[in-house]
Amino acid sequence: MKFYDCKTAPSPRRVRIFLAEKGVDLETVQIDLGKGEQFSDEFRAVNPDCTVPVLELDDGSRISEVTAICQYIEDLNPEPALFGSSPEERARVSMWNAKVEQLGLSAMMDAFRNSAKGLVDRALPGPESYVQLPELAERGRRRVSHFFERLNNQLADNTYVAGDNYSIADISAMVLVDFAGWIKIGIPDDVEHVARWYSDVSKRPSAAA
Amino acid sequence: MKFYDCKTAPSPRRVRIFLAEKGVDLETVQIDLGKGEQFSDEFRAVNPDCTVPVLELDDGSRISEVTAICQYIEDLNPEPALFGSSPEERARVSMWNAKVEQLGLSAMMDAFRNSAKGLVDRALPGPESYVQLPELAERGRRRVSHFFERLNNQLADNTYVAGDNYSIADISAMVLVDFAGWIKIGIPDDVEHVARWYSDVSKRPSAAA
Repeated sequence: MKFYDCKTAPSPRRVRIFLAEKGVDLETVQIDLGKGEQFSDEFRAVNPDCTVPVLELDDGSRISEVTAICQYIEDLNPEPALFGSSPEERARVSMWNAKVEQLGLSAMMDAFRNSAKGLVDRALPGPESYVQLPELAERGRRRVSHFFERLNNQLADNTYVAGDNYSIADISAMVLVDFAGWIKIGIPDDVEHVARWYSDVSKRPSAAA
Repeated sequence: MKFYDCKTAPSPRRVRIFLAEKGVDLETVQIDLGKGEQFSDEFRAVNPDCTVPVLELDDGSRISEVTAICQYIEDLNPEPALFGSSPEERARVSMWNAKVEQLGLSAMMDAFRNSAKGLVDRALPGPESYVQLPELAERGRRRVSHFFERLNNQLADNTYVAGDNYSIADISAMVLVDFAGWIKIGIPDDVEHVARWYSDVSKRPSAAA
């Protein structure tokens, strides 16, 4: 297998943390998004959507999208279970991972990509060009703040994002918190449960990935 | 189990089709999104994110998010497999389901919610209010067109969205095509493989769900 990574980007970091938790070490190719290497003809043949991460399987086929890659790693390396164990826990993990993506990470992507000076006409990842919308940057910031409150309510009653056990939903949410720091959105003072949880998950060795 | 549905909405329709393919019949509660029933105190206790679908499990816990609900149904009713069988096929299904959601359905939601007369200040689902952005409606239409081309390339070489077998990715993509019809985005004339596939999947009895 071969892992197409970008060591500075949030999405492939989710996979790197997942691999570290599993103790899986893969041959890795760095794609420098800052230099636009994702738009090269060579990389378009790997992923026509011009995004990382991508996992190249031993049969030569390629899998993109973070959750799909992590699920494949989990299928081949079931322990420790990071997608949940029982059907009920698996459902909670899948639900929370989706909420972090849709309510948190996509809002943060809107906030960042619609305001970064280096991303004019690159408001969305992928091969097409889209202009930045300042209103979308502002809306994204507001949505991230709302999501921190939502997450705080969940973490008031739960050790981890999806319940009693550390899971891919914690990885996604920790990467969101660090990504939000890029544009100076910190954990608000009044969301104490997020602060407790973030301090906890950040101490895991995998957080350095 | 109890299924919170809205018979007119695209997201819960994905679950209804999934249930029909599985031959699973659930006690169903209709939430009328047009009347704002998702914002009632009663429903907020079911899902604080004020969205359908929601599945209430026998232990009283609630699962929202389409893919999480469908995965739970699959775990309890493995046949026919709609998330793939081998790890490789499961990864392809998860990847394509994610691509349909992120590149197709979220673009379509932008196009619809930012232009519908009945959704002023409701540009996003959920408890908070967000103003409509006309540029986002226009961008969404453009993205849906691009996604139809992307899907066409995939279906040129594959019977179904994720390969040889019908899966949840086909359900998501078929619902996208029908949702796009709400704002008169039809399948473009030059994406013949999407047209062939759509004609095929639409004839399945589950498509009536």
